[in-house]
Amino acid sequence: MTKPLQVTGIGHALVDIIASCEEALLEEFSLAKGTMRLTSPEEAAALYDKMGPAVETSGGSAANTCAGIASLGGRAGFMGKVGHDQFARVFAHDIRSIGVVFSDGEAKSETPTGRCLILVTPDGERTMNTNLGAAAEFADADLDRAAIEASQVLYLEGYLFDPVEARAAFHTAADLARAAGTKVAFTLSDPFCVDRHREGFRSFIRDRVDIVFANERELLSLFPGSTFEEACAEIKTECSMAAITRSEKGAVIIEGERAIAVPAVPIEKLVDATGAGDLYAAGFLFGLASGSDLETCGRLGSLAASEVIVHVGPRPRRPLVEAARAHGLI
Amino acid sequence: MTKPLQVTGIGHALVDIIASCEEALLEEFSLAKGTMRLTSPEEAAALYDKMGPAVETSGGSAANTCAGIASLGGRAGFMGKVGHDQFARVFAHDIRSIGVVFSDGEAKSETPTGRCLILVTPDGERTMNTNLGAAAEFADADLDRAAIEASQVLYLEGYLFDPVEARAAFHTAADLARAAGTKVAFTLSDPFCVDRHREGFRSFIRDRVDIVFANERELLSLFPGSTFEEACAEIKTECSMAAITRSEKGAVIIEGERAIAVPAVPIEKLVDATGAGDLYAAGFLFGLASGSDLETCGRLGSLAASEVIVHVGPRPRRPLVEAARAHGLI
Repeated sequence: MTKPLQVTGIGHALVDIIASCEEALLEEFSLAKGTMRLTSPEEAAALYDKMGPAVETSGGSAANTCAGIASLGGRAGFMGKVGHDQFARVFAHDIRSIGVVFSDGEAKSETPTGRCLILVTPDGERTMNTNLGAAAEFADADLDRAAIEASQVLYLEGYLFDPVEARAAFHTAADLARAAGTKVAFTLSDPFCVDRHREGFRSFIRDRVDIVFANERELLSLFPGSTFEEACAEIKTECSMAAITRSEKGAVIIEGERAIAVPAVPIEKLVDATGAGDLYAAGFLFGLASGSDLETCGRLGSLAASEVIVHVGPRPRRPLVEAARAHGLI
Repeated sequence: MTKPLQVTGIGHALVDIIASCEEALLEEFSLAKGTMRLTSPEEAAALYDKMGPAVETSGGSAANTCAGIASLGGRAGFMGKVGHDQFARVFAHDIRSIGVVFSDGEAKSETPTGRCLILVTPDGERTMNTNLGAAAEFADADLDRAAIEASQVLYLEGYLFDPVEARAAFHTAADLARAAGTKVAFTLSDPFCVDRHREGFRSFIRDRVDIVFANERELLSLFPGSTFEEACAEIKTECSMAAITRSEKGAVIIEGERAIAVPAVPIEKLVDATGAGDLYAAGFLFGLASGSDLETCGRLGSLAASEVIVHVGPRPRRPLVEAARAHGLI
């Protein structure tokens, strides 16, 4: 039976505030390049004061993935918590206007909508400082149970392990999904996030997850001390499928004893890596939910990622469905 | 005597909400491509509902010009009115973080910060729909008189002729400037804006303006029925200097009987024309206030414009001072 939605995501509903910066700013605030750090409102204000002119755009990891699926012509839903402010309207507008069914929870929060200060260094790498705001208040009551049951895949971002209530909602959502024959996909999100929740991630994956997304650093953080090959051997014993991205080296898709290497799509110049992993997951999951073979899923992922890193911002600027057609992938 | 500020601008303090769209959306809302239309909050909401995913960034014509001057290493100030909301904080952050002295008036407004819905068609042309909000409340009391007197050039955007109080403040500001030996520069802003205020613009220019900025369509709207050559002959009798931009055909600088043609700087692909005229004025005024010859002023203008139309958004993404150095203009 075809389900009405291909993918429903749950994640932090965030507005990104993106500015170029020199390496020195990362040092000044002791930021680890390429990672995400949670900040208090006060820390965020201090950093914003030091940031150059910025661009605001809707973000949030799973939300970016869902936007990418819609841009590919897929049927996607998203659940996340926003406040009552202008950023809430921006977030809701952007995700709905690209065609995602957005469920903003049982009630909006009085807390400001979450935002992520993103510093883009001259090498195109992004370093993220997230003030979760309302996004962190996502809880069981905000789950749209019918949407989860009506989806082929439930997609969860690892970042939601940070707030306790959201983590509990994840477990509920995953259990609902499995009972309804909905596959559960999970992204490890960030090496430090993995570090904070290693055992929780491992048991969540073992017990509830079918498909794992991770980049190389995140995978190695899940299995500390392992080589890349050893970590790949480990992950395949804990879930039925994993897609491991390795930036310009492409990605490896692991399913049981199969391992398929898919090259990255070449780009002219890396402008802003924000959203690369999110869009990889978008292409991959769209392919999977559409019945494509694994190699095509991987190529859709690489293509979607390549489209989003050549401009500032984590979401596609032009319909991904056109790029996918031009590459003969759909 | 060197004045502490090279240029102080007065204009609408706006946040731009920029989205790609197909030509059909312009037709649906009867929008004239490449122009600016004033909209009510209700009209703006209806259009926003139909717009695709957007990017938010600080805008406002004269504000973009002042940001460009700061990016070139110049000393710029800006006056404009914002509200109490998140967009107000975004606007203030962006303009201050690039180095502009921002004066937000005697008191913030209770009205929401103004915003401009910008539709970018596949040809890169922008069509603007402005809900002025707090920006329209700029009045005499909001003038920072000391800043005007401390500037070499006062730069005024024609758009502020729409709100009656702001128009009155312009006249006060221009009179203050002339009494203090501050040159008055004025941009015609938009062909429809010229059409709404043709006689007001003409007498304002004759009585109070030294330097006029316009594109070809705006100049022809000021002198309806004229050819381009006739309009150039007219404008030189009404002010001491004019810089007329003609998109990819470059610009003509007119000073008395001199007319200097300066070619446009070639670009790879026009992505978003938003801010082209504003940044032309930035380069030109920075050159003028720095003592450059007119041809160099024109080349600085063309260079600054070329840097801003190859990405989405009306302000420079990287320091213009570097581009100007690379081109041997400073």
